[in-house]
Amino acid sequence: MKISIIGTGNVATQLALGLEQKGLSVVEVYGRNASKAKALINKLYIANYVSSLDFRNSPADVFIICVSDNAIEEVAQNIMLPPQALLLHTSGSVPMQLLTNYHSNVGILYPLQSISLQKSTQWQEVNLVINCNQENTLPLLVKLASKLSPNVYRYSDEQRKAMHLAAVFGSNFTNHLLKIVKDIADAEGLDFGLFRSLILNTVQKAFDIGPEASQTGPAIRNDQGIIDAHLDMLKDSQGLEELYQMLTKHIQATYQK
Amino acid sequence: MKISIIGTGNVATQLALGLEQKGLSVVEVYGRNASKAKALINKLYIANYVSSLDFRNSPADVFIICVSDNAIEEVAQNIMLPPQALLLHTSGSVPMQLLTNYHSNVGILYPLQSISLQKSTQWQEVNLVINCNQENTLPLLVKLASKLSPNVYRYSDEQRKAMHLAAVFGSNFTNHLLKIVKDIADAEGLDFGLFRSLILNTVQKAFDIGPEASQTGPAIRNDQGIIDAHLDMLKDSQGLEELYQMLTKHIQATYQK
Repeated sequence: MKISIIGTGNVATQLALGLEQKGLSVVEVYGRNASKAKALINKLYIANYVSSLDFRNSPADVFIICVSDNAIEEVAQNIMLPPQALLLHTSGSVPMQLLTNYHSNVGILYPLQSISLQKSTQWQEVNLVINCNQENTLPLLVKLASKLSPNVYRYSDEQRKAMHLAAVFGSNFTNHLLKIVKDIADAEGLDFGLFRSLILNTVQKAFDIGPEASQTGPAIRNDQGIIDAHLDMLKDSQGLEELYQMLTKHIQATYQK
Repeated sequence: MKISIIGTGNVATQLALGLEQKGLSVVEVYGRNASKAKALINKLYIANYVSSLDFRNSPADVFIICVSDNAIEEVAQNIMLPPQALLLHTSGSVPMQLLTNYHSNVGILYPLQSISLQKSTQWQEVNLVINCNQENTLPLLVKLASKLSPNVYRYSDEQRKAMHLAAVFGSNFTNHLLKIVKDIADAEGLDFGLFRSLILNTVQKAFDIGPEASQTGPAIRNDQGIIDAHLDMLKDSQGLEELYQMLTKHIQATYQK
């Protein structure tokens, strides 16, 4: 199986590295930004940089679009593929239809993970969501995904969209809460690392006993004295007072139903 | 060292169990709610239930108040202790002064952890924040805390208050985001457990490379198409649309500074 990667960002980089690590051949990287594409090429064994979306003579049989959601359609519209090639995108939210509009053999390879340039993705821990429009393509897609991770699931557009929305709350917003933790810690000269055990244990507990049984703190206890003291500590920090208040009220509304 | 526990909630229960597990003697449990106190007594080896705060003839030398923050003062005011006994509370936010107002030998034993009844606290992983008003009490307090965990830190009231505020964001609010994840997953018939790897990896990544380098998702990419689609999916869910919008704007404001 020979693979071409369209894109040079976080997902393109970690996916290309992961595919190679699992023994697959990444033969081409396309990127509009030549210097970013070449930086990625330099990390790979045999991949060539290509600056055109004309892949009609490409040796690859699978093409994976790893560009931001709003750029996927433009790529799908302009890319020219060898016959029978499989075209995938990696987005949580973009419907498969956007690819079938332009190509006959298409699918999804969505990693349910937050992927950053600075940290190697541990692909074997990632849940991969797949789908494809041709049933006879499924074995190839499953084979590809299973090289990366044992955890491969086929879900519809609708389910994948819901997973992506949930992932924004569970991952992107959680990470931002950790940024707030770090800012509060920094302001008092406290080490951010002090909170590692607390937060890892919080997440493990939520999955072990459910987030409802796991909820603790002043909001669910209706401890207005502490809530007021915290709001007072936040009154000069832009937006944090409102955020604390909204999250507190949402917790209280959730458990007073 | 003989210890009496004042309270019967999450912290009282897990702390009493943890102290016993580490070889310390919990000799008494005080609780206003006799049935909850007796339920805790039943889990312990030798502890007796006591219904009065008159501990003048108690065999204990350390008394640990594990009641909700707004009830600590009432306990401190009414408790009668043997001479030289050490009185501790376990709150993140209540100043030590509240105890020194009524007693001469006092201190803090604040576990930086979210503690629930249904999940055994792994005390050896917990960061413990201590303080005391008498320097010659410090060795006893360190000895007690070190039995529970190797991670013992002495911090001021001010620092402990900031830690507690940060813990509300990092633990209580994070756990609530996980409740939202579960609700979205449930509505689509998806297993909440699918998100475990995503969220544990998100937290580990934030501590490994910092939450700034770790931030991904539509907010920081300014991907308004996805943001609008997500807001549209949330428009019938009470409060979630506003929460999504506020968190998104706060991320954007943080990184556009």
